[in-house]
Amino acid sequence: MAWEDIAKDKKSRIANSIPKEWRIESLLLDDNVMGYAESSGILSDEELAITGSTAVDLVARMASGELTSVAVTTAFCKRAALAQQLTNCTLEFFPKLALRRAQELDEHFKSTGKVVGPLHGLPISLKDQFRVKEIETSMGYVAWIGNYEKENSVLVDLLLQAGAVFYVKTSVPQSLMVCETINNVIGRTVNPRNKNWSCGGSSGGEGAMVGFRGGIIGVGTDIGGSIRVPSAFNFLYGIRPSHGRLPYAKMANSMEGQETVHSVCGPLTHSVADMRLFMTSVLAQEPWKYDSKVIPLPWQQAEEDAIKAKIASKGLTIGFYKSDGNVTPHPPILRGVDTVLSTLKEAGHTIFPWTPYKHGHAHNLINTIYASDGGHDVFEAINSSGEPAIPNFQDLLKPALPKIDMNELWATHLKKWAYQSEYLEQFRLAEISLGREIDAIVCPITPTAAVRHDRFKYYGYASVVNLLDFTSVVVPVMFADKNIDTKVEGYEALSELDGVVQAEYDPVAYDGAPVAVQVVGRRLTEERIMAIAEEIGRLLGNDITTQI
Amino acid sequence: MAWEDIAKDKKSRIANSIPKEWRIESLLLDDNVMGYAESSGILSDEELAITGSTAVDLVARMASGELTSVAVTTAFCKRAALAQQLTNCTLEFFPKLALRRAQELDEHFKSTGKVVGPLHGLPISLKDQFRVKEIETSMGYVAWIGNYEKENSVLVDLLLQAGAVFYVKTSVPQSLMVCETINNVIGRTVNPRNKNWSCGGSSGGEGAMVGFRGGIIGVGTDIGGSIRVPSAFNFLYGIRPSHGRLPYAKMANSMEGQETVHSVCGPLTHSVADMRLFMTSVLAQEPWKYDSKVIPLPWQQAEEDAIKAKIASKGLTIGFYKSDGNVTPHPPILRGVDTVLSTLKEAGHTIFPWTPYKHGHAHNLINTIYASDGGHDVFEAINSSGEPAIPNFQDLLKPALPKIDMNELWATHLKKWAYQSEYLEQFRLAEISLGREIDAIVCPITPTAAVRHDRFKYYGYASVVNLLDFTSVVVPVMFADKNIDTKVEGYEALSELDGVVQAEYDPVAYDGAPVAVQVVGRRLTEERIMAIAEEIGRLLGNDITTQI
Repeated sequence: MAWEDIAKDKKSRIANSIPKEWRIESLLLDDNVMGYAESSGILSDEELAITGSTAVDLVARMASGELTSVAVTTAFCKRAALAQQLTNCTLEFFPKLALRRAQELDEHFKSTGKVVGPLHGLPISLKDQFRVKEIETSMGYVAWIGNYEKENSVLVDLLLQAGAVFYVKTSVPQSLMVCETINNVIGRTVNPRNKNWSCGGSSGGEGAMVGFRGGIIGVGTDIGGSIRVPSAFNFLYGIRPSHGRLPYAKMANSMEGQETVHSVCGPLTHSVADMRLFMTSVLAQEPWKYDSKVIPLPWQQAEEDAIKAKIASKGLTIGFYKSDGNVTPHPPILRGVDTVLSTLKEAGHTIFPWTPYKHGHAHNLINTIYASDGGHDVFEAINSSGEPAIPNFQDLLKPALPKIDMNELWATHLKKWAYQSEYLEQFRLAEISLGREIDAIVCPITPTAAVRHDRFKYYGYASVVNLLDFTSVVVPVMFADKNIDTKVEGYEALSELDGVVQAEYDPVAYDGAPVAVQVVGRRLTEERIMAIAEEIGRLLGNDITTQI
Repeated sequence: MAWEDIAKDKKSRIANSIPKEWRIESLLLDDNVMGYAESSGILSDEELAITGSTAVDLVARMASGELTSVAVTTAFCKRAALAQQLTNCTLEFFPKLALRRAQELDEHFKSTGKVVGPLHGLPISLKDQFRVKEIETSMGYVAWIGNYEKENSVLVDLLLQAGAVFYVKTSVPQSLMVCETINNVIGRTVNPRNKNWSCGGSSGGEGAMVGFRGGIIGVGTDIGGSIRVPSAFNFLYGIRPSHGRLPYAKMANSMEGQETVHSVCGPLTHSVADMRLFMTSVLAQEPWKYDSKVIPLPWQQAEEDAIKAKIASKGLTIGFYKSDGNVTPHPPILRGVDTVLSTLKEAGHTIFPWTPYKHGHAHNLINTIYASDGGHDVFEAINSSGEPAIPNFQDLLKPALPKIDMNELWATHLKKWAYQSEYLEQFRLAEISLGREIDAIVCPITPTAAVRHDRFKYYGYASVVNLLDFTSVVVPVMFADKNIDTKVEGYEALSELDGVVQAEYDPVAYDGAPVAVQVVGRRLTEERIMAIAEEIGRLLGNDITTQI
């Protein structure tokens, strides 16, 4: 069968997975579909309330018997069906399996009076890299369509153990190595706030799904911004934990086995409280007993408490940079960072300028790593069906390069290690000079607010954090405003790429686009960075339960 | 200059680094030189007592002002000088620098009444992979002679911060990839208990030095047994911590940058108490702030306490295997394991047979990894001086193989990860079947007691633990006895290699050779495994302060 026919069949199967009563009749819609669930009449008031709630609240209500998992799962399935029809964000949708699971959980609760785990009954949305038994994993590759899984990814097993319900797997860009979401199976996923903006990538389906509240906690992966960029573009919180904190075993991936820079799993959520529910629930399953790469490090409450004590005493010390010296962010992003800084300062905390240490070098180094097999693995997956390569990933993955050899790889490892250790030295030197511990660094995650399609050009703000294996939490800050965020006239570009990125800014086109920052800490500081992100969100007034 | 002349010059510089008054006149010595320090007249009674003491005791006495670092350092320098002359175990000896440092520490203590850190004044012996400012690092490569270091390895810096004194760097085999110690710079290092036995390798110089008590804590490295084998062959305790527990940054190495299986640092000691002093002292320096590969995991006292509670309630659960199914250990080793098991059983603990899971596969896989650059890096170092390759490392590193390519490496990574995770599954299944937590596995570390020269053939008992990245502590058990450990008649070999190893056994030649086991636990379980090793040593009566 021609690849077009395979893709077409898959697309129609996705469409058919949506029950008739959840289908949208007319697609004469506004660019912004964020209000559609409320006006559609497909969700009841209770279902709207459920999908507008928090995960923390929902699991508490299910654990008290006030809500059933069937009710909660039905609500999210309906809303996910809308999300799919409005943003084209799913590769798999399986409400029947989900409702069967929800019913089993409800029966368990009814008969025992007990929950099976801390996520009992909660629907969780998964990026289409997660293997779920009986469900396909195509990851947007035409050649992989028809891969029905015989076993679960480890994180899937542990989430089931914790009581989660799965109902959807969301779209990704071909190859995963792109921060927008487009593939030859279902095409492009768009941003629910404006169909002309990207939902981000590679966990872009998650971004659109959770952004639209078709999901409450979505699980993505990040090797160069793939959790954080969709979080930023959809006004969500998102964490890139350090490698080894959460299990990745038995996931599908491109460039599988590449270990110089590890892809990691992490949640996209509407609040840090929900993120914490996810993290603590997974860690409570002792993932290090299942996946050898997971460090035996349970949730460190004392680390969170240390930050809370600093918050209480106005004692946070936060470094910041607005530009990495390579590509200057657009005006909304610069204002976003400023907003966070002035908010922190007003709250009595200490901020200081952080000098990005050799970020250009780091950005080049990680690009070398991404291309270390010369794109062989990705092109094998693409070519085996005959589908064409999407144009976007030329920006990140340059397949024209030859494979590097073993000793070149080892030299690259040494460069990475030296860079990481030098960065730690920058922390130590700054701490000596400040006379206090640095708690985090606030900086852009992308140079743009939610970007227009095919305009994502610069990964450095995100990818340097991956190279360092630092913990990073994205915090939604505000929305671009054409009246405030005016274009810089006579901007002198730092480089050709910087000029291209800066030229893309258009106050009208970006009006209303989500603006975010990332809060970055040293390796394996999830508890601390999440607590700081939560406080920043609270100070900004974005620590909200409903954001529709 | 011809490589022979460079080596000769280096050798004579090492000889000249020993002050005349510490030189041995006659070298008509017994095979066993363990009593030489006592009979030589070079060390005073106090110096003999110091070198026969424990590190824990020495740092306590220096911290109370009862002993000076100069006295302690002088004693160990003298005894190290003897060790060098008797076993040929050092590549660098610098007593003058050591005594200058000791004096500075004494002056600091005198003027402030305070120690600089938990190792204040304690001499620590280093394998010649550690970089120490102003000192050469040759690692036994002729081509590297003359490399005077401009900066310290991170662990060296942190040990200095903790108060340590350095005085010697010990010998290694050419390439490091051998479990005996021989190179073209100084030749062969021998075992102080019998010059016909190997001191082990690659941290063999440490084994001989600490075994002879020319050092009290020696620091080695281990990528395939290199800490554990010399510990076993010299009746010492030795730990291979999991990767990421101790810093390795800025160490010299062969195959530098190879990250599929990491070499790790760890101490060789006479007791677990001294090992714990080392581990806690290094972790107290927060090594994760200096070396990006170190996990921010301080000493976990609660983990040690959990084991102590089990010991108190006779509640340990210990798996064991005597053979890995590939190479059957010699009779003394089998008896060694049996001795540990019966001792544990008598003490009321639970033992159960552990089935080695695919160790043959693992052994082949790690050999592929060692050879992944086809020996390119090692041969570059060897060939650049013109020195010949030592014959031994043909057993481990087969340089005739071509480099593997990037996608083959990634496939190897996946095999490693799958194997590690399957091994964890074996633990989980066994725990379900036993109905209790497994605390450790006791097994051989080598198939032989301290081996005769050039007869070390099988690395599998050690190297599978490296592939798994498990924590392993070697515990000295007893000595081979020609009257008990008789040769097995009519042994049917499992394989050609097994036949070669078994044929090597000779009760008379091995009479008196040290016999050890390793105590193995899951990744990053140092606190637990050390506590179990300590208890086994105590039960065996080997938890002693002087073992000469």
